[in-house]
Amino acid sequence: MKGEIFAIGTELLMGELHDTNSPYIAGELSLLGITVERVTQVGDNLKDLAESFSIALARSDYIFTTGGLGPTQDDLTREAIAVSLGEKTTVSSKLLEELEDWFKARDMKMPERNIKQAVLIPSARSIPNKMGTAPGWFIEHNEKIIVAMPGPPDEMQNIWVNEVLPLIKARIKKSVILTKTIKTLNLSEAEVAELVAIFFGIENPSLGIYAKQDGIHLRIISKAATKAEAMNLMGTVEEGIAKKLGSHIWGYDDDTPEEMAGRALADRGLTIASMESCTGGLLSSVLTDVPGSSDYFKGGLICYDVDSKLENGVPDNIISNYGAISRETALAMAKAARKKFKADIGIGVTGVAGPGKQERKPVGTVFAAISMDGKDRNFAMKLPPRRPIVKRRAVVAILIELTRVLKEPSRRPT
Amino acid sequence: MKGEIFAIGTELLMGELHDTNSPYIAGELSLLGITVERVTQVGDNLKDLAESFSIALARSDYIFTTGGLGPTQDDLTREAIAVSLGEKTTVSSKLLEELEDWFKARDMKMPERNIKQAVLIPSARSIPNKMGTAPGWFIEHNEKIIVAMPGPPDEMQNIWVNEVLPLIKARIKKSVILTKTIKTLNLSEAEVAELVAIFFGIENPSLGIYAKQDGIHLRIISKAATKAEAMNLMGTVEEGIAKKLGSHIWGYDDDTPEEMAGRALADRGLTIASMESCTGGLLSSVLTDVPGSSDYFKGGLICYDVDSKLENGVPDNIISNYGAISRETALAMAKAARKKFKADIGIGVTGVAGPGKQERKPVGTVFAAISMDGKDRNFAMKLPPRRPIVKRRAVVAILIELTRVLKEPSRRPT
Repeated sequence: MKGEIFAIGTELLMGELHDTNSPYIAGELSLLGITVERVTQVGDNLKDLAESFSIALARSDYIFTTGGLGPTQDDLTREAIAVSLGEKTTVSSKLLEELEDWFKARDMKMPERNIKQAVLIPSARSIPNKMGTAPGWFIEHNEKIIVAMPGPPDEMQNIWVNEVLPLIKARIKKSVILTKTIKTLNLSEAEVAELVAIFFGIENPSLGIYAKQDGIHLRIISKAATKAEAMNLMGTVEEGIAKKLGSHIWGYDDDTPEEMAGRALADRGLTIASMESCTGGLLSSVLTDVPGSSDYFKGGLICYDVDSKLENGVPDNIISNYGAISRETALAMAKAARKKFKADIGIGVTGVAGPGKQERKPVGTVFAAISMDGKDRNFAMKLPPRRPIVKRRAVVAILIELTRVLKEPSRRPT
Repeated sequence: MKGEIFAIGTELLMGELHDTNSPYIAGELSLLGITVERVTQVGDNLKDLAESFSIALARSDYIFTTGGLGPTQDDLTREAIAVSLGEKTTVSSKLLEELEDWFKARDMKMPERNIKQAVLIPSARSIPNKMGTAPGWFIEHNEKIIVAMPGPPDEMQNIWVNEVLPLIKARIKKSVILTKTIKTLNLSEAEVAELVAIFFGIENPSLGIYAKQDGIHLRIISKAATKAEAMNLMGTVEEGIAKKLGSHIWGYDDDTPEEMAGRALADRGLTIASMESCTGGLLSSVLTDVPGSSDYFKGGLICYDVDSKLENGVPDNIISNYGAISRETALAMAKAARKKFKADIGIGVTGVAGPGKQERKPVGTVFAAISMDGKDRNFAMKLPPRRPIVKRRAVVAILIELTRVLKEPSRRPT
């Protein structure tokens, strides 16, 4: 089955507003077995839109649009669909009533221009929009489907999950589609691709590779008539990949480094504190992005210069013997943080974020350490020499290493 | 003049990889007076691509493509352009030599498949790509321009700035286009739009409004035959807007809150330290995103719980009288940070990032304070009740307020 997506609105063509709806829909459709052949961003122009829809109807089974459902003169998606299908729009008294109620509930009188949001064409049924005034349209026409959705991403996703997805699933013959994302660290895209090359030729399950901020991701999609069969297909490839990539795999699907670390801390009832230099507070900030992190995060220190490191418990002789940017200082920082905040675990991180070298060490050199009862661990990184990347990658690597340490049974500190 | 952009590659249609090239090019074109009418993401399919280019040639003056210039069988942009123009591709011996040199310089032998990156058609000249093996194409054909660029964003932007932009500027009749972005805080998009409504009807200079993470931005674009005239047009509207928005304006063009604050600190030779609660280290991290921030950033503390606030210099009676989430505690935190790190300025921030209420204060309540010689200042915020937004918005507001305080002559602390 072929699909096509339109993001409608002149503001999308100015370069300021990025279209996030189309990638969202494209990702969802790939899981439904609908192949997206084209994504088009087009302005608020009736003729352009109507022509585009006519061409799309000739070549695609499913057409999805976002935007252009507002109450202003510029909002022309409904009108253009009507033109491309040769149908007439009429005001639906039921929709009009719902719209008036929407305004009434907010102590407002419905402006006259909003009437245009209550129109329908014969082949369209309306899709309720609980978050705004623009209902969507679900159209069946000569075995083709057109779905028109509002442009604000939260309204669109709400409608997608609650209204559109069930309608499409019901329409698609029941085949089971399973997906799994495997997340790796410390390998380049080319290295991952080479290691799992033998799985790329297979059509089902299919395999995709994506470079992300937290490493290289692999996505497996398996399709079959039954769930058992789909799981079986998936399992074979997943096992094969796990064997090839081994300990480079750090997580699956929606796992994030900070949530995994947080869960591992909460599971074991341990608390944590940090002393950061080159990451400048990003480690603490990412740790505390997780709701409920106040249960395990005791506190953090950002000690940018040598003096503040010394004043906060890093021994003088460590820095003078090994330098501020060293494994030894990272470990001393971890220990100092742990002691200062009376935490079970301390993290220390020091390095060169750039733009210039420090202590003759190149930009991207980072040392990190984890200190806990019965076990101290430290490690070195050599990251791409760009300030934001050094900070971000160092934090990801530390959180993944922390999770690993917490899950090692032999490292159990209590 | 009408423009059209194609982002080429099946991976763009899976929802995993977002197309950032097209918004970049669209933004650049709007400054050149080229109106983008359509952006299309399309897969690696020769027939689809050739048809799309033919249709685009009929309606647009400028066509820009990114992607599909690699050495593999899937890379079909060159071939599709040749088909749409009815021209034949031939290997250019000059390009082939350059390509072989590129590999030689890296101690590699050029794989045979890379030969396809050395082809040209009669109406194309090659655009050098210093960052990769894929040269671009610049095509003039019946008064239409097609520019084919590689897909990796850094290669594309490098080629754009150094090669493509000069060629297009030289081609466009010399009219001067000036732009200015005005950045505001603490007003909604609707409020800004209403305040400056009278300027929206004007065609030149034109005005755009954009909701961003750091507030609402207005962009003015003025066009004229001479620079003086363009500046004059711009000046009138800019002044009018400044009068309407007053102190809600915090910056212009490429200004970021952290760079402005950093510059203001460096200009006055002052140092800074922070104690954060609800922002969890994000303030320190954003402050230290600026290269050279080690000159003024003395250190930071993240004190999530009451104990660590008390241990780091926040007086007991302040917290017991006013609560941990209060103006008074924010100020006490600012003073404690300043003292602890021996900095000229201290920042304190405490609030409710969510998901739950604290001290019966709703999510989004944030108190911040700035302490410096001769002047302490504190302020309250009521932010949208979502954790990442609370953190981000609080940091932006603090940095903007800090910049303001530093620029007030009467507040001069030394």
